[in-house]
Amino acid sequence: MSDYAKGLEGIIAAETEMSFIDGQKGVLEYVGIPIGELGKNSTFEETVFLLWNQRLPKASELEAFTKDLRSRYEIPGALAERIKALPTTAQPMHVLRTLISELALYDNDPNANDPDSARDKSLNVLAKAPALVAYFDRHRRGLDFVKPDASLGFAENFLNMLNGEKPTETMARAFDICMILHTDHGLNNSTFTARVIISTLSDVYSALTGAVGSLRGPLHGGANEGVMHMLNEIPDLDAVEPFIMGKIERKDKIMGFGHRVYKAKDPRAFALQGLAKQLATDTGNQDLFNKSMKIEEVMTRELGAKGIYPNVDFYSATTYHCIGLKLDLFTPMFAMSRLGGWSGHVIEQLSNNRLFRPTAKYVGPHDAPYVAIGDR
Amino acid sequence: MSDYAKGLEGIIAAETEMSFIDGQKGVLEYVGIPIGELGKNSTFEETVFLLWNQRLPKASELEAFTKDLRSRYEIPGALAERIKALPTTAQPMHVLRTLISELALYDNDPNANDPDSARDKSLNVLAKAPALVAYFDRHRRGLDFVKPDASLGFAENFLNMLNGEKPTETMARAFDICMILHTDHGLNNSTFTARVIISTLSDVYSALTGAVGSLRGPLHGGANEGVMHMLNEIPDLDAVEPFIMGKIERKDKIMGFGHRVYKAKDPRAFALQGLAKQLATDTGNQDLFNKSMKIEEVMTRELGAKGIYPNVDFYSATTYHCIGLKLDLFTPMFAMSRLGGWSGHVIEQLSNNRLFRPTAKYVGPHDAPYVAIGDR
Repeated sequence: MSDYAKGLEGIIAAETEMSFIDGQKGVLEYVGIPIGELGKNSTFEETVFLLWNQRLPKASELEAFTKDLRSRYEIPGALAERIKALPTTAQPMHVLRTLISELALYDNDPNANDPDSARDKSLNVLAKAPALVAYFDRHRRGLDFVKPDASLGFAENFLNMLNGEKPTETMARAFDICMILHTDHGLNNSTFTARVIISTLSDVYSALTGAVGSLRGPLHGGANEGVMHMLNEIPDLDAVEPFIMGKIERKDKIMGFGHRVYKAKDPRAFALQGLAKQLATDTGNQDLFNKSMKIEEVMTRELGAKGIYPNVDFYSATTYHCIGLKLDLFTPMFAMSRLGGWSGHVIEQLSNNRLFRPTAKYVGPHDAPYVAIGDR
Repeated sequence: MSDYAKGLEGIIAAETEMSFIDGQKGVLEYVGIPIGELGKNSTFEETVFLLWNQRLPKASELEAFTKDLRSRYEIPGALAERIKALPTTAQPMHVLRTLISELALYDNDPNANDPDSARDKSLNVLAKAPALVAYFDRHRRGLDFVKPDASLGFAENFLNMLNGEKPTETMARAFDICMILHTDHGLNNSTFTARVIISTLSDVYSALTGAVGSLRGPLHGGANEGVMHMLNEIPDLDAVEPFIMGKIERKDKIMGFGHRVYKAKDPRAFALQGLAKQLATDTGNQDLFNKSMKIEEVMTRELGAKGIYPNVDFYSATTYHCIGLKLDLFTPMFAMSRLGGWSGHVIEQLSNNRLFRPTAKYVGPHDAPYVAIGDR
């Protein structure tokens, strides 16, 4: 019996062929390809194929994969009707978790876990998640739904359904790169959740639903909302230095900095930083970008020696803001992207499964009597 | 860095004051009290109080806890209406997972995780789960809903809502004991799932939704359905011996036997066995009970030396059958009970939290180039 590994830090809980992280050096690779290369050259669809097949697709394979994905964009009509009756005050992450779970009710064989079925169901959820998010957002804004357009790629189709107009080329590309960067990241909590759930030989819907619930936590995907809150709290560029120094003095947590895994700058933050700058310029958000740069400068000067650097959330927040996304859609964007990774891990876990069943250390009494209620 | 602990077997992942298991000796205690004592003397409501507070309640505390639980039995009217429009072909575990998730949409502060809020939301889900299950089952049978009755205890109220008539005293007590026996069981997969999810400081609804998804797997809560399938496959008492011997010879898995934790007879199976016999007699199901006894006899003779004994699923299956529950409601019953344990673990995890973030061993390539699509 081992010692108590609180938070399972340092425990190897799975083998994977999908992503590799060297936190000391600030390296992230998908199937050996550095994340920066994929951000520069790939698309979200190709990246998902890479993660699910451990190789880049040939042109004909990518075409078939993309066609299959696009043919599944639309959600069942009955489910679309149900979205129109949801409480408009509901939070999008709770809605997304509920609706991904509900997709299982419209699948006539939701429990099939053979390799082909697991891929089929994964593709189904991945293809439909954008409509689930966009339809609910339009419902709460009192707008009609914009149907998916199978002539558009994943990123462009989502932004079209959300906003009712096609995004600019820069926005679509920026959004696509965000999707690539967030797709997989080792055994993060939500990915681990998906593997733990599927290890009971449960089903793809159960695993992905659980993962969405994990991601919404502020110690995980919920962190990018916190970055935007902080940026909004700082009135202008001159206010950055006193604001951050005050936080450091009071030992407050500073959102978007530090990561249990990285002791160098998060390589995804590098990839996003350039994008964020271009978008900020395109969309008239230079002030926001300048504040971000100044925060990073102060933080690096003060805490860089302790290995506290910007993480991916720090730049994804400004990117999503510039694309025009509302704050409470930031984490759902992370979920839409990470579905690619979660599904890949579910497929991988099923291919060589062992039930996750750790042990608890019991620290209570033993051999206690059942005392009758009058005698307590 | 540790070795790869596949399935996390032997790894201590949490401390708990709730339940203690000695698998070699076949012991299960809740806060030190042997499970058999609780099955004999306690109620489900009292057992949940015990697990959430690490002590038995005084009479006035139990009264207040029960009153609070009963006052929350009814689900929001809008949600009840939505249940009436669900596909009648949907499987109850997928429905329960979806509806527990959906409860968050009717909570105006679903993310509150302070100790009082976590207990409040846990009580809310526990109180409402029976209506979620009963309403959907009546919907698919084309029957009107039977509203909860706050004058009834948890077990009796559920059976009344499901069947439209009050259960006999024996049935209500039998069902209540099943609820007690299934409430907590160390770091089983679904409980671990709930703790992993809440460790991101997500929310009670996310954690419990994920746990339901885990439980439905055939390697976990789904196993009790398999027992009933097996019993239905065996035509009569004489057929038991050749059926079981054939399975052993072919090395088929025999449902309801063996457990990763227990190498002796599952103490919950002991507690259920007497109950199953009484119920079988009361409900004219002696044949079924006799077949069960014969299966246990053959299995113990052939495989007892290897530590393969009946587990809790073996007798819960016949018990639920005698109560008149349809096969696909067996696992939802397990979930209704285990919600008490899951919630207790969520409360415990929040009181001393550390994010679960294990490591994956990467076994793929490194430094791979991004090859242009025409060159693959």
